[in-house]
Amino acid sequence: MARAETTGESRRSAKWQARRDTIIDTSARVFARRGYHATGIMELCAANDLGKGALYHYIGSKEALLAAIHNRVMDEVMLGADRVATAGGSPSQQLAMLGDELLDVIHRYPDHVWVFLHEFPALTGERADQFRVRRRAYEQRVEAVLQAGVDSGEFRDLDPRLTAMAWLGMHNYTYLWLKPGGSLTSRDVTKPFAEIFMRGIEKRRG
Amino acid sequence: MARAETTGESRRSAKWQARRDTIIDTSARVFARRGYHATGIMELCAANDLGKGALYHYIGSKEALLAAIHNRVMDEVMLGADRVATAGGSPSQQLAMLGDELLDVIHRYPDHVWVFLHEFPALTGERADQFRVRRRAYEQRVEAVLQAGVDSGEFRDLDPRLTAMAWLGMHNYTYLWLKPGGSLTSRDVTKPFAEIFMRGIEKRRG
Repeated sequence: MARAETTGESRRSAKWQARRDTIIDTSARVFARRGYHATGIMELCAANDLGKGALYHYIGSKEALLAAIHNRVMDEVMLGADRVATAGGSPSQQLAMLGDELLDVIHRYPDHVWVFLHEFPALTGERADQFRVRRRAYEQRVEAVLQAGVDSGEFRDLDPRLTAMAWLGMHNYTYLWLKPGGSLTSRDVTKPFAEIFMRGIEKRRG
Repeated sequence: MARAETTGESRRSAKWQARRDTIIDTSARVFARRGYHATGIMELCAANDLGKGALYHYIGSKEALLAAIHNRVMDEVMLGADRVATAGGSPSQQLAMLGDELLDVIHRYPDHVWVFLHEFPALTGERADQFRVRRRAYEQRVEAVLQAGVDSGEFRDLDPRLTAMAWLGMHNYTYLWLKPGGSLTSRDVTKPFAEIFMRGIEKRRG
């Protein structure tokens, strides 16, 4: 299903894709305010100023729309992780860059991230599987950087999985309080967070 | 409103209170699965095996029920913080104990915590205010311990607010993956988490 949806999309025009992206963004805002289950197709039509047929033409189904919101977040998160891998550097530099990239996504997509973190249990079947696989792939990027730091002797002996979950929690949880237009930017937060985390896991000399 | 509800409750019998607590727990499970907005009063009646009149007799309104779920979490969290304050000890010992207490609540009340973290925007008026005040009071406990550690020279110079948010994120986010009956207990997690955090904020000698 999810694969077929993606293949289907790739054959569409750029204009169609752009319109679809706008619908995804608008609908993320509606789901974030109102909740996925409580939002009906008619509300989505009204928010997007589209008839039911036109809306389905772009999104396929309400659950496909939810999956598209999740994918928009995961696409950005994985793009950031790819940039970090390409940039190279020591494990601690990699981890700091991953933090910058992650908070940047959370800060730029507050509604999508809200929906992402709250409504994932509503995904079913292949869409739920795909979401789990993608989320796990990102966690594994973080774990790999932690393991590389242990192997190189930069980080102390630690459990990469638990440590990755601590790191993810610290960063992901900012979705509740780091708001666009607020007094803090994501960079104001990543520096002290990285300082806590790096000191927390580094191997000490002597 | 919230105050009046509490006063009203305190005049009820222990049996009435116990029945109400059971309704709160059952309804937390329903809200966690289905979402607050999408759950109707009739679903709550069915889940609690009560008629509409009887349900309202115990809970007052759907929003009062949501507030009660939030209060159940906050009551436990603040009780834990009080135990820590009574126990005394150094700031780093206090922070470690706060972590133990917090993860214990998250682990024991997975449905309530899910609803707490996801549905708080549905609280309105005085209930929303009361929730914000209580949550802030807990954050201030954490901040006070951090500030005490800075003052005593145990912790390095840090921003207590940002550091408290990092600590809260690391711990609160476990609600997504630390499940009752899972392979990890909350104590398996608090120890490595405390180790990362303490090393991350301690003041180093020499």
